[in-house]
Amino acid sequence: MASSTGDRSQAVRNGLRAKVLTLDGMNPRVRRVEYAVRGPIVQRALELEQELRQGVKKPFTEVIRANIGDAQAMGQRPITFLRQVLALCVNPDLLSSPNFPDDAKKRAERILQACGGHSLGAYSVSSGIQLIREDVARYIERRDGGIPADPKNVFLSTGASDAIVTVLKLLVAGEGHTRTGVLIPIPQYPLYSATLAELGAVQVDYYLDEERAWALDVAELHRALCQARDHCRPRALCVINPGNPTGQVQTRECIEAVIRFAFEERLFLLADEVYQDNVYAAGSQFHSFKKVLMEMGPPYAGQQELASFHSTSKGYMGECGFRGGYVEVVNMDAAVQQQMLKLMSVRLCPPVPGQALLDLVVSPPAPTDPSFAQFQAEKQAVLAELAAKAKLTEQVFNEAPGISCNPVQGAMYSFPRVQLPPRAVERAQELGLAPDMFFCLRLLEETGICVVPGSGFGQREGTYHFRMTILPPLEKLRLLLEKLSRFHAKFTLEYS
Amino acid sequence: MASSTGDRSQAVRNGLRAKVLTLDGMNPRVRRVEYAVRGPIVQRALELEQELRQGVKKPFTEVIRANIGDAQAMGQRPITFLRQVLALCVNPDLLSSPNFPDDAKKRAERILQACGGHSLGAYSVSSGIQLIREDVARYIERRDGGIPADPKNVFLSTGASDAIVTVLKLLVAGEGHTRTGVLIPIPQYPLYSATLAELGAVQVDYYLDEERAWALDVAELHRALCQARDHCRPRALCVINPGNPTGQVQTRECIEAVIRFAFEERLFLLADEVYQDNVYAAGSQFHSFKKVLMEMGPPYAGQQELASFHSTSKGYMGECGFRGGYVEVVNMDAAVQQQMLKLMSVRLCPPVPGQALLDLVVSPPAPTDPSFAQFQAEKQAVLAELAAKAKLTEQVFNEAPGISCNPVQGAMYSFPRVQLPPRAVERAQELGLAPDMFFCLRLLEETGICVVPGSGFGQREGTYHFRMTILPPLEKLRLLLEKLSRFHAKFTLEYS
Repeated sequence: MASSTGDRSQAVRNGLRAKVLTLDGMNPRVRRVEYAVRGPIVQRALELEQELRQGVKKPFTEVIRANIGDAQAMGQRPITFLRQVLALCVNPDLLSSPNFPDDAKKRAERILQACGGHSLGAYSVSSGIQLIREDVARYIERRDGGIPADPKNVFLSTGASDAIVTVLKLLVAGEGHTRTGVLIPIPQYPLYSATLAELGAVQVDYYLDEERAWALDVAELHRALCQARDHCRPRALCVINPGNPTGQVQTRECIEAVIRFAFEERLFLLADEVYQDNVYAAGSQFHSFKKVLMEMGPPYAGQQELASFHSTSKGYMGECGFRGGYVEVVNMDAAVQQQMLKLMSVRLCPPVPGQALLDLVVSPPAPTDPSFAQFQAEKQAVLAELAAKAKLTEQVFNEAPGISCNPVQGAMYSFPRVQLPPRAVERAQELGLAPDMFFCLRLLEETGICVVPGSGFGQREGTYHFRMTILPPLEKLRLLLEKLSRFHAKFTLEYS
Repeated sequence: MASSTGDRSQAVRNGLRAKVLTLDGMNPRVRRVEYAVRGPIVQRALELEQELRQGVKKPFTEVIRANIGDAQAMGQRPITFLRQVLALCVNPDLLSSPNFPDDAKKRAERILQACGGHSLGAYSVSSGIQLIREDVARYIERRDGGIPADPKNVFLSTGASDAIVTVLKLLVAGEGHTRTGVLIPIPQYPLYSATLAELGAVQVDYYLDEERAWALDVAELHRALCQARDHCRPRALCVINPGNPTGQVQTRECIEAVIRFAFEERLFLLADEVYQDNVYAAGSQFHSFKKVLMEMGPPYAGQQELASFHSTSKGYMGECGFRGGYVEVVNMDAAVQQQMLKLMSVRLCPPVPGQALLDLVVSPPAPTDPSFAQFQAEKQAVLAELAAKAKLTEQVFNEAPGISCNPVQGAMYSFPRVQLPPRAVERAQELGLAPDMFFCLRLLEETGICVVPGSGFGQREGTYHFRMTILPPLEKLRLLLEKLSRFHAKFTLEYS
């Protein structure tokens, strides 16, 4: 990678002057951003793929990208109904084709009626197509056992990330000791750390409890908050449930305790619930923060501010490329909500095909619809296979000496802990690498398996982890898990 | 609209405590953001539409949204070939259908081959699908008469707005007198002012010359730069060509002068060229900044830093809803370019359907392809009608007393100047409104025509304008222009 300094001496040799925009002179906040899920290890994976294509000999024949929750890249087929309706929306000439079921046609016509000029090619209003906001609200009501949801509080977005960044932007204020602090779990999904770095807010870490299957402990929230109050003004608390990268599913009791804590400490709650359809473990169940909050009644229900995020990228559909998502805000100040809408309007609107897809996800075929049986069968097959893969992952890793893995109760990842021998840690330090980065890079070079080091998500000092998706097809996943476990044994031996 | 203060007294009456996130306590930079294209006037247009649907009597039967460059919302039909290929990509089962031309199928297969899991539902790499970056580079080379373009310097984006914001983010640094200043044209497209407000950069206004058909004058750039150096550190210069909202098309001489100025004054150049296919006036021609820069040779060609933006939302296709776009960077520091890619990676990837659409726009059917004739006919029909509408707009407005309109040489808007009688200005001030906002609101209430006041784009003190798209169908546009002119005459009389 070229360094700015290197460029400059090169420039001087060529008789060129310095650039206007240099690494030293650029936005220092942007420089501080880190995003491990697509960091240097993924860059290296891309290079290796290119080398393989050019015929370079490697100890493996393909690179397996288990670094990112991208189901369709791992071979999962799109759900037929979703793609039928979308194709009809994209090319309405197909509405006269006999090859599409009637309910798919009706759904496409309904969506197109709600679009400007009856076309996916028109901008929508910035908060998203009104009909789809209404469908999202009805989905939330069904999900939450009838607790009302108001379409006015639903804002469609470009994937969940976009909405999360927007809400965080609203919260950032102050300077020095009054800067906004935001509590985030450790390990976290690095969108949070990256966004806080870019916005100049203070990241306040609270640690999930690995010994208790990555449970969230309110005492730890207290500790983190108290320490943070010395140097910033904590204003918000982020929770990821089901957990990314940790795979834990929070109990109802835990969620209640978190809400009480947020209320007492006056923290705006951000609930990242994009894996709400991805719950596998017996005894685990998804409880939305909104539902729990409303059922807690006064003083919480009518006052605690909450933003809940969802996405079309995960679940059973895995339609990452369409960048669909939404946020529901609860108890948000009306004037702030207007400001949020204004901010969204600068970027015009979320991608309309993603909005259409979201509509189908939140209002799938009804039992009386011609497409229902196939839709259900496809959906259940995906979720059943994911559950089997979650189980398999935990099992294989826990059989490997030096690797321990909490149950993958939900989401799409395992986050196993690996023992790394002291000599490997020293070697990594010599190379200027985090020890788990060193491990993951060696793993990639020798097996083609691309996983993300725990240091990219945060972990307790002196512990080492990696995040690996459970998305490869079952038999391939088994081979991968075994290969990875064998590599770890070999690596341990090499450095012992 | 509820005010925060109003909420608070309401809250006190209900025995509720204050919100955590209030208008007073929220991000002050976000509060300063303004975006007129979707501002209060558009909110009011939405309300009026709802009232009409509910059967409320109005002096008009429909609201005409001439506020935003949204061709398909105005009835423009999508280009057949684009939608055929996209439908095939969305639902590859259609690849076996006899109802699609062979070249459309080949194009869909080619795009799907380049997608993760051969599906639009997988994430792409953050810079965009490699194949499409290569196609964009070849498009730029054709456009610029063979001047090389490197796919490594092309980054796909979520519409052009996304890429513009990303490049501006890189440039922002410093505090107080060393804060980054960015020169933007007045009138401007308000994405620029909104983004600079949000980033806390200093907006440095340079005025386009209305007397010379909104030409860009380098002497005015000098004036703006010198004044700005007193209170900030100007580091970038934004140019919109063809102009939004002004419709001017810059001459080659002007572009050369701008490049020399940027080079001498050490300014990073941002060239917003999203209307590059929208040039109508006889004698006007689009010259890309990249081409002019390269043809100027040393010392400019190898050194002047430039980012050029393009979009699928405008041109002849008007596919706004898909949010496709790209930026090409030229002479950017390699380390800064890495930082830009890192920043983009936090948001994962631009919408993949938008990327696919962009691919078709930059590599349309070749003359030997079965779809060529229809594609060309549809494209030329759209561009010919736009040219006729540009001419008609100028003509009708210039026949109206008190309205004067520069030629719409390109883009999709007229930005006519309107005389407002002093009593109307006084009345507006009593109402706390900008005089042109008052005019536009009255216009909307009485005619249903929604246009954006010039104050949302910036204008010389004491002059008044509005931006109106030229997108309604020709005969409807004629009626609108006449209705608007008559309303202005009536309004003038009323306040004289």
